[in-house]
Parts: sequence; structure tokens; C-alpha cells
Amino acid sequence: MNTVLLESKEPNPSDLIWSERLKVDFDVNKMHEFLEGSKKNSIEMMKLMQQIERDPILNVNAEYYEMSKNEHRELTAQKIARLAKYIENDAPDFETFQNRLNMIAVVDPQLGTRIGVHLGLFLGALKGNGTEDQFNYWAIERGALYMRGIYGCFAMTEMAHGSNVAGLETTATFNKEKNTIIINTPHVGATKWWIGGAAHSATHTVCYARLISDGKDYGVKTFMVPLRDSNHELCPGVSIGDIGAKMGRDGIDNGWIQFSNVEIPKEYMLSKFTTIDEDGEVVDPPLAQLAYGALLGGRVTMVTDSFRTSERFITIALRYSVGRRQFASKGEKIENQLINYPLHQRRLIPYLSWTYGMAIASEEIQQFYKQILQELDDGVKSGDFDKLKVAIDNLKMLFGNSASLKSTCTWTALSLIDECRQSCGGHGYSSYSGFAKGFTDHAVQCTWEGDNNVLAQNSGRITIQKTIAYLKSNKAPKGDYSFISESSKKGEILNKSNIINLDKLLEAYDAILYRISLDCISSLEKNGNDWDAISSEKLALSKLYSVRYILSKWIAKMQTLQKDNGNIAKYLVKLAQVFAFSNIETFGSWFLQFGVISNDDFKSLKTEHDKLLLELRSQVIGLTDSFKFSNFFINSTLGSFNGDIYNDYLKVVKTQDKQFGGKAPYSEVLEKMLNRGSVEEREHGQKSEEVLEKLSN
Amino acid sequence: MNTVLLESKEPNPSDLIWSERLKVDFDVNKMHEFLEGSKKNSIEMMKLMQQIERDPILNVNAEYYEMSKNEHRELTAQKIARLAKYIENDAPDFETFQNRLNMIAVVDPQLGTRIGVHLGLFLGALKGNGTEDQFNYWAIERGALYMRGIYGCFAMTEMAHGSNVAGLETTATFNKEKNTIIINTPHVGATKWWIGGAAHSATHTVCYARLISDGKDYGVKTFMVPLRDSNHELCPGVSIGDIGAKMGRDGIDNGWIQFSNVEIPKEYMLSKFTTIDEDGEVVDPPLAQLAYGALLGGRVTMVTDSFRTSERFITIALRYSVGRRQFASKGEKIENQLINYPLHQRRLIPYLSWTYGMAIASEEIQQFYKQILQELDDGVKSGDFDKLKVAIDNLKMLFGNSASLKSTCTWTALSLIDECRQSCGGHGYSSYSGFAKGFTDHAVQCTWEGDNNVLAQNSGRITIQKTIAYLKSNKAPKGDYSFISESSKKGEILNKSNIINLDKLLEAYDAILYRISLDCISSLEKNGNDWDAISSEKLALSKLYSVRYILSKWIAKMQTLQKDNGNIAKYLVKLAQVFAFSNIETFGSWFLQFGVISNDDFKSLKTEHDKLLLELRSQVIGLTDSFKFSNFFINSTLGSFNGDIYNDYLKVVKTQDKQFGGKAPYSEVLEKMLNRGSVEEREHGQKSEEVLEKLSN
Repeated sequence: MNTVLLESKEPNPSDLIWSERLKVDFDVNKMHEFLEGSKKNSIEMMKLMQQIERDPILNVNAEYYEMSKNEHRELTAQKIARLAKYIENDAPDFETFQNRLNMIAVVDPQLGTRIGVHLGLFLGALKGNGTEDQFNYWAIERGALYMRGIYGCFAMTEMAHGSNVAGLETTATFNKEKNTIIINTPHVGATKWWIGGAAHSATHTVCYARLISDGKDYGVKTFMVPLRDSNHELCPGVSIGDIGAKMGRDGIDNGWIQFSNVEIPKEYMLSKFTTIDEDGEVVDPPLAQLAYGALLGGRVTMVTDSFRTSERFITIALRYSVGRRQFASKGEKIENQLINYPLHQRRLIPYLSWTYGMAIASEEIQQFYKQILQELDDGVKSGDFDKLKVAIDNLKMLFGNSASLKSTCTWTALSLIDECRQSCGGHGYSSYSGFAKGFTDHAVQCTWEGDNNVLAQNSGRITIQKTIAYLKSNKAPKGDYSFISESSKKGEILNKSNIINLDKLLEAYDAILYRISLDCISSLEKNGNDWDAISSEKLALSKLYSVRYILSKWIAKMQTLQKDNGNIAKYLVKLAQVFAFSNIETFGSWFLQFGVISNDDFKSLKTEHDKLLLELRSQVIGLTDSFKFSNFFINSTLGSFNGDIYNDYLKVVKTQDKQFGGKAPYSEVLEKMLNRGSVEEREHGQKSEEVLEKLSN
Repeated sequence: MNTVLLESKEPNPSDLIWSERLKVDFDVNKMHEFLEGSKKNSIEMMKLMQQIERDPILNVNAEYYEMSKNEHRELTAQKIARLAKYIENDAPDFETFQNRLNMIAVVDPQLGTRIGVHLGLFLGALKGNGTEDQFNYWAIERGALYMRGIYGCFAMTEMAHGSNVAGLETTATFNKEKNTIIINTPHVGATKWWIGGAAHSATHTVCYARLISDGKDYGVKTFMVPLRDSNHELCPGVSIGDIGAKMGRDGIDNGWIQFSNVEIPKEYMLSKFTTIDEDGEVVDPPLAQLAYGALLGGRVTMVTDSFRTSERFITIALRYSVGRRQFASKGEKIENQLINYPLHQRRLIPYLSWTYGMAIASEEIQQFYKQILQELDDGVKSGDFDKLKVAIDNLKMLFGNSASLKSTCTWTALSLIDECRQSCGGHGYSSYSGFAKGFTDHAVQCTWEGDNNVLAQNSGRITIQKTIAYLKSNKAPKGDYSFISESSKKGEILNKSNIINLDKLLEAYDAILYRISLDCISSLEKNGNDWDAISSEKLALSKLYSVRYILSKWIAKMQTLQKDNGNIAKYLVKLAQVFAFSNIETFGSWFLQFGVISNDDFKSLKTEHDKLLLELRSQVIGLTDSFKFSNFFINSTLGSFNGDIYNDYLKVVKTQDKQFGGKAPYSEVLEKMLNRGSVEEREHGQKSEEVLEKLSN
């Protein structure tokens, strides 16, 4: 409580938030279970969160928003060392450790990445490309699995090659005489670049390089290359530097690496799939594509990241929208809460629905990924080719689904963060609101591990190809593409009377995907199969595929709810409708152009949409409380559970202000400026009439 | 040149850019004159740029991207002191100084803001609200105009009140006995917040506070309040702190201020419009609205800022798109340049067209603003009420135009920066590319000096009101709203055969604005005049109004081109068409829903759009060279004139890497982790079977 003069009235954001909390119309615990997939998951997640927020080294607070690059790096290293102990403790249950990492990434994404590079990329590549013996030596015997002895990085990207992995130019030349391989960076463009952990940390790397044997180029393979010795000093021929400041994630020591004829034993080539015999012949079995399976894990994780990040930021924005008043309506004395404005509802609630949608997508794709890894393992171990074929088909499906979902969800989360920031007005621009770092940290998700635009092209192409195959065979595709069907070819699917029916809405998405595909096929026939010419269509297809994927899984998941569901079904349906509606509006020109909905009914959809938003408006506190993010995970002056926005904010600002009440260190510069003499004085009057008179004689 | 092994080939981005430069098909100098408005402006701008980039203190380079908040603040103070000398030198030509500031803001936006707050807001408010004598004393006699003696800040926003200025809660209570005014902050929500320059710099502020006299509240007025004395120490009753870290613009010392019954002489009230007589009666003439005229300058400047910022970032992205190769087309050995991909053209060239459009908008609105200030000055001085009425009508028009253009252009520039960043792949995420700071610095433009969503609501409302007035009077509105006409009510405006005709395209925008307005009017009739219910329509109207405004001025400006125009007309037409097309696509669901174009013709528009993009593709180097931004103003490793991307980038990274070749300062933390013993060792084997056996007995 502050000293307040009698006649004034302090704003009361806490009251506002608490009075809405009392009106929550469903069981928040049950909603959390729905979001996490099960009661068991819900409890597990809460345990992990408690462990993280209580840990003194993993701690994060407002100070985090003030740190310099060097401070972030040092702190991140300390946290890595701390987590090395958790991984020993969690082992062999790596799923728990992965969940732990995912939650840490919510408040400290750079830390998540640092460890993700080692465990996910470095060890993932080792597991995907190396033999069992190779994995056992480096990961177990040498301790990499527990971040002991070995810290790895992943040297794939080069300065001049990002998305096009097959075009990498680092060479790995087999030396038959010495039975060694020479790793070399031929020119500046082939410098390994963006390599997380390389600048200061990694002792080893999995290096992607073109295998050359007897002058023949066998394409890009993977090699274990030591970078630093046990004194943490660079190995000869290895040049490494820091690539410096980035938009975000400063705690990651991304580096560049140039190899100048670095010699490694032949046995350091990862050889689950590729081997070199004594004569230098390279044997490359057809299953090498399986090696990429492990790398898809990164894309899958990013769907989860997008979901968790969205949970955090939509909570902040919606709490603020309830606690903040601005402008009084006509005739009113008290100003209106932001959330009462229909435009504010339209800006935020569709993103809330996306967050719920991403929860479903995240769980589905995680499960599918785990299933495939198991199938692959079983298939390889048993040598059963039928099993392997199923696994490979599923892997292909995952490739397409993850391409669409990774790109769509990371983009959505990025625009969600910025819309949430803008919705908090000026205060959203304060670092302590969390949005600034949230945005800059998340931004890279749209680019790394498959540039979003490139991935979206892949996904769009797959939908078209599935449609082509369907038209040829007249057989419905399997799995997630089974929606492709002649029945959605023509006519208006949605109309005024069926517009809130979720099945009908799903049908509308089936139809739009099919019709755009047909249109693309006809373009391809006319343009001589120029796939680049239909790139904006492919982009739309990829985004729409994600929406359809989520909506279909959402509807299916609703079926599994029990009758006694604490009234969550009611709001899940409304959120699903908002999700479907808002995306039809976003892609409105496609839905109208292809006649999935008529111009008149498009207007009705908007009206229904507004009605739903109003119905959800009273539940926004409950729908975000359901995420169960404590203040630690929110880490924002604007979004704490109690919602005492203004006092929280002033307190943080005062704590962070090291010069409070005093002068700034640079005050002298300003004082000198303010107290300077006039131009005439400073120039000894050398432009005065008197002087000019003198000078003219 | 680097040492390169014989058989390898370095990438050649410079060659690629220079060979495109040789193919430029128009006179780049003439294009610059078009963009700047005249040959004279073009030359003036180049002179200013030369002065800025040569100045040792105003210098900006890659180091700039590494600075901490404190370093930015100190450097900014030094630059302010430097610019104080330029303003003395430029005086009395403040237009030149303003142009200088606008160009400085391209590379150092925080510096632009720091001085903008003093000159634009503080002195603007003094000029707008103070009497001539008051202005003369504070600005001239005391030296504020030259940043001598007085450094001002602008205490409007409060913690709980941003956009709603009329709701501010700081009080200014008239004390009749002492003939003084007491300034007080009643509670935490009324703390002045976000006040640029307050934390460490300002000696005075123009404070917005509610004037209370004899218990009566006269609403928000303005007061000159001293904050610091000549020793730069805080005055009694004045509490000031730093509001700390922000998303960007760290060089600005935004502060908070609490006044605890601070007494100022009555004469410190700015009293051009408001006066208090001896009995405490407040006299408030009807022309007080004119006081806001000076504040519109900020919004006008942001249109220019958006234009300049867009010039810079679209140049970087397009140069990179020419110099960078990725993926080879089927059958090709050499990889394709990014710009050759139709999707890449679609991502960037419409933003290039927006940049040209914003050049036109910026010049138009700047001219209009100057004209109005002159009219107001003339009107007030002459006391001619007819003249004043014209000026006030124009001021209202400016209010609407600037609301629409400020919001639309700042939003466009923000998404332009991020799309450009993403189009540069991973390298766009490096701070040295410039995008990161560009984005975070620009982001606040969407919020300050009128939140974009609030402004857009104002603009949308005006269009609807003009339509209502037109329907009542059947008289065409004046000025920029004269397009409102019954003729655009019905039918398809665009079709396959007229689609590239700029006049027809303009007509299509006339029609969409009119039809959405009619639709809103009918909604208002049905919903009992609830303007909030049509807020998404108002938002669309505001954006479409800006597009229409720009397109109409663009067409008009094309008429003024001479025959001998160095072939620039050819490309200006194509850019205008892309501008019109891409925005019809963006707002496609509106154009289709209201039947301005048919579904089939919408498809033709896309085809024409693709054709145009391909035609412009060969000229992107010329069209960005036309901005004449030297490497200093580009300040990006990815976008220098010579385009030696990879060598430029590596050089900067090496220069910035203070630990190159050595260990990081935090290396010990990692080494300790890597060299730690096993869990068993560290725990003295206390979980060994042997121990457990012992413990179980």
C-alpha cells in the first residue's frame, strides 16, 4: 500500500483480475490435464516446474533482461554445468530431461538451445549416423551423454550454405596410404558458420563434409572431429572464432570454424550407413535417408516451443487486458477494461485459440515422433523390412507434417508475441514485460533447422503430389492426407446454418486444400511443370494444412472427453470454433475465390465470430490460468498472477535503477553542454562585424 | 583475396551485384530526385549525409551493435552535445536541422528521439501552448532552442494513462493566496512514465496536469516545471528514476517522475489559451484544440522515419538476394540467386513498392504540415477568422491523414524489416546485418505518439463519417475525401482487360472504401450506433485509406514527370502497379466480398502481378541504389554497395571478437564440468550396493 491523498483513487488491477477469476466457469485443473494430454502429464509437468523455479542456479528474474552478452554467456555456462547434474540424475529417463529442457526454454531459451545442440544435434547425429560401437564409445565411454569429458557441436551450416545441405563445400578427402581423412575448408564461403557452442565450448564436432575418395565426390557425410584438447585449447589446423552479437539468445556462443587440412582417423567417419573399404571404395546403402530421422526431432521440438512460448505471452497480454483500463465509454465515469473492446478481443482471443491448438499439435507430433523412433529401432534391430517400410512411410509423413507445423507454429508464435506486446501499449516495450527478449529469442525459430519458407514449400508440394497420386489411382491417401477426396471438389461447404458446426468447418478446410491443389495441378500442366511458379499457392497450402491438421486432431480429442469433464468441453468447442473462424478470415480471399463460402455467408461468419469472442471474454483469466505458469515462468511485470501491475512494475524498475536519485555516469557531458558559452564567446568573436571590418581592409 | 586451393571456387557475390548494376535501365540520379521531391532536395540530402558520415562523433559502425545500455547512453549524450553545435550553425534554418535529424535517425534512431523530445515535444508544446513571451523567455533568452541552459522533457504519459490524455490524473492546484500552482502525483498510477530524457538529462519539463481551482477540475493543461537545478541535482519534491531496459533505443534515458506537492509560480502555466484571473477563475477559449497542432509533427515525422527505415532495410535484403545463391535448379550446376525465385520476388518487391509509396506519402504530408503551420501562424497573427477556419479545416484533415498514415506506414516498415531479416536466412539474425536493432528500435513507432490501433480507429471513423455526411448532403467531400462518390457503389470495377490501368486501380480503392463504409453505416443503424462493434472494419478502412492516398498521390506525381525523365517513368508505373496489386491481394477478402473484382479476375490479377515482379526483378539493384544510401547509412555486413558479403562479414566478426583464438572468460566453468568425476566419486559411493547393504542392517 502506498500513501495516497484522501480524495484520489489508485487503480485496482488486482481486484479486476481476481473478480474475473471468481467467475471462471470450468475446472482449471481438468483443462490443464487436457492441455498436457493426461492427468499424469499434468502432475509431472508441475513437479518439473517446481524443481526449476526453486533451483538457485537456474533462477531467472528481471535482472535477466539487463544482462550483457558476456554476462549471459557466463551464466549460461553455469546453468549448463548445473543441468549436467540433473541429466545424471534423470538418466536413463531422457524423456523427463527433455521435458525439463522444454520448460527451461520458456524462460531461458538460450540455455535450452545450448543443451539442445549437444544432446539433440550432436548426439542425435552420432546416433543417427554412427554405428552402435561409435555411439557407445563417444557417448557412453567418453561421457558425452552426461556432458562429461566431451561437449559437442554440430558443424553443418556453412557461410554460403544454409538450407541446401547437399551443396555444402567442406571436403573430407580419404587418404588411402595413411588410412586417414583430411577435413578442409576450401574457401571463405565454406567456413562453418552459426555453429552453436563452437566459439568457446565444444571439444568435438560432428562435421558435415563432402567425402572425396580417389577423386570422386560421394556427397555429404558426417565425421567426428576433435576441436579442443583436454586443456580446452584448439587443435592444430582448427581456427575458431566467435560470430558475435545476435538478435537474441546471446548466451549461445555461436562460432565459425575453418579447417585447414585437419587429419582424422578413418574410423572417425560415422559409418552406420556409409563405409570406405580398403581400396577406397565408398559403400552407400539406400537407407541413408534414415539418418535424417534424428534431425527431425528439432522441428518437432519447435512445435512444442511455439506452444509453450505462446502460453506465456498470451497469459501476460490477457491478464493485462483485464487489469488495464483505457478510455471511458459514453456516459461512463470509470474507464473501460481493454478486454471489453471488441477489437482487443479480436486481436488476442484468436491467438489464445491458436495456443490451445498448438497444445494439441505439440502432443500429437511428439507422440508420432516417438512412435517412429521406436519403429525404426525395432525395424533395424529385427532386420524386418516390412516393419522398416512402415517406419519409413511414417517418417515421410512426419517430414511433411513437421515441415508444415514447424513453419506455421513458429510464425504464429512470433506474430503472437508482437501482437501481445502491441496490445500492452507502451509498457509492452519495457524489457521487464518480457516481450522484447521473447520476440528476439524466438525470431530465429523461423529460420533455423529448416527455413520456414523452404519448409512450407516442401509441405505445399506434398499436398499437391498426394492429390496427383489420388487423381491417378482414385485411391484415398493414407494417414493424415486421407481427407483428399473428390467430394470436396465443388460447391459451397459452409453456409449460415451450418457455420458453427466443427465437422463442417473441417470439411471447409478439406475443400480449400483440395481446390487449391487442383488449381496448382492445372497451372503445372500449363507452365511445363514449373513448381516455383506456384510458390505462393504452396505457401498457403502449407499454412492451411497445419490449420486443418490441428482442427482435425482437436475434434478427435474432444471425442475422448468424459461426460464429467468439469465443463471444459463447452469452452474447448468455442475455442475450436474461433480457431476455425479466424483462420478462414485470415485466408478469406482463398475461401471466397474457390467458393467454399459465399460472400454473404462470409459476413455471417464474422458476426458469429464476434459473438463467440464475447462469450469467451469472461473466461480469459481461467483459460490462461489453465496453463499453470507460475510468476517465475511468466517473468513479467505486466502478467503476474495477482495482477498488481503498477506496483510490481515500479518495484522492479526501482530495484534495477542503480543510480536512483543520483547523477548518471555521463552527466558531465550534458552539464558541459548546457553550461557552454555562446557561439561568439567560444569563437572569440571572430565573426563579429568588428573583426570582419578589420579583415576587409 | 584469400588463399584458396586451386580446384575450389569462392562465391562471387560482388560480381553478381555489379553485373546487375551494369544492366540498370534508368537514370538513378533522376530517380533519387523523384524520391526526394526535387533536384534541389536531392543535392541537399547528399550534403547532409556527407556531413553526418564524416563527423567523428556522429560515427556509427558494427561496434554500435555490441553496446550496452550504459555505453549507448553515454555515447548518445556526446552526440547530443555535438549536435548542439550543428543547431547553432544551422539556425535559423530549423528545416535543415530537422532533415539532418531525420537522416541521423536512419542509423541512430535513439539519438533522433532524444533530440526530437527536446525540440519537437518540449519546445513544440511550449510553442503550441505558451504565449509568445513565454516562448521567448524559455526558448530564446534561456537558450533551450539551442540546447543551452535548458534541456527539456515532455511529461504527458502516466503509468496508467497512455492514449487517453484527457484522463491524466496528475493535479495542478491553484493556490489563490500565494498565486502559485501545486503539482502533485496523487497515486502510483499517475506517476509520469516513459518520459524520454527525464531519468538523467532534463532540467525542465512541460507537465500535463489537471488544473484545479477552487475545487473545480478544468481538465488537462500544461505547466513548465523545473526538475533539476544548475548543479543538475533534483529539485525538492521531485522524485525521478530510470525506467530501465527497453526493447530498443537504449540510448534514451526514459524516466518516471513523481511530484509531491511541488510549488511553481502561476506564471509557469503555459497560457496561450488558458488563463487564471486573480479570483481563480479559469478562462479557456474555444481555440485550445490548436494546441495539439504542434504535436501532430511527431506523427508526420514517423511517416518519414518509416520511409527512410524501409529504404535502408529493403536495400540490404535486395542486395543480398542478388549476391546469395541457394539450391540449383534442375539440370543446373550453379545454384540459383535468391531473387530468381518467384516467392522471393513476392516477399520483397511489394515492400520495395511500399518504400517508393512511402517516399511520396512522406513528402506530401510534410508539405501539408508545413503549409498548415504557416496558415495557423498567419491566421493567429492577422486575427483573420476566415483564414483560421481554413487552417483548422486543414488541421482536421491532417489529423485524419496522419492517423492513417502514421499507423499504416509504421506497421508496414515493421513487417518490412522482419520480412527482410527472414529473407536473409540465418545471417539476418546476426546483429551486424542491422535487422535486429532495426526491428527493436522501430517497434515502438507502432505504439508511441498515438497507438496505431487507436489511430486507425480514428481514421476509419472519419471515412465513415465523411460518407454519412455525403449521403445526407449529396455533396462530394472536400480535399482528400473527394473520392467518396455514389458512382463507386456497385458492380465490378476491375476486370481482366483493365487490370493494369492505374486509374482503374485507384477507382477500385475508391470503391472498396465506399462500400465498406456503407456496410458500416448499415451496421450502425442496426446495432444502435455501437462504433466499437465495427472496429475491425474501421481498422481495414484506415489501412486501405493509406493505400488509396498513396496511390492517388503517386498517379498525380507521375503527371509532373518530364518527357525526358531518364526512363524512370517506366519503372515507377510498374512499381505503382505492384503496390496496387499486392494490397488488393492483402485485402483480398474485402475486394472479393464487396464485388470490386470477380473471383476469376482475382486470379488474373495474381498472374499479372507475377509478370510485373519478374519485369522489376532485373532492376532491383538500380531501384535500391536510387536511395543513395552509402555504406555508412546501410551499416550492414550483408548490404554494402560492393556486395562482398562473405568477406565483409568475416572481417567484422573477427574485428569484434576480442577473445579470438583464446579461451572465454568463463571457460573455467565449462572445463570444471567436463573434467568432473563420476556421480559415484562425487558422492563418495554413498549409493553403492555395499553402502546400502551396510545401512540396511
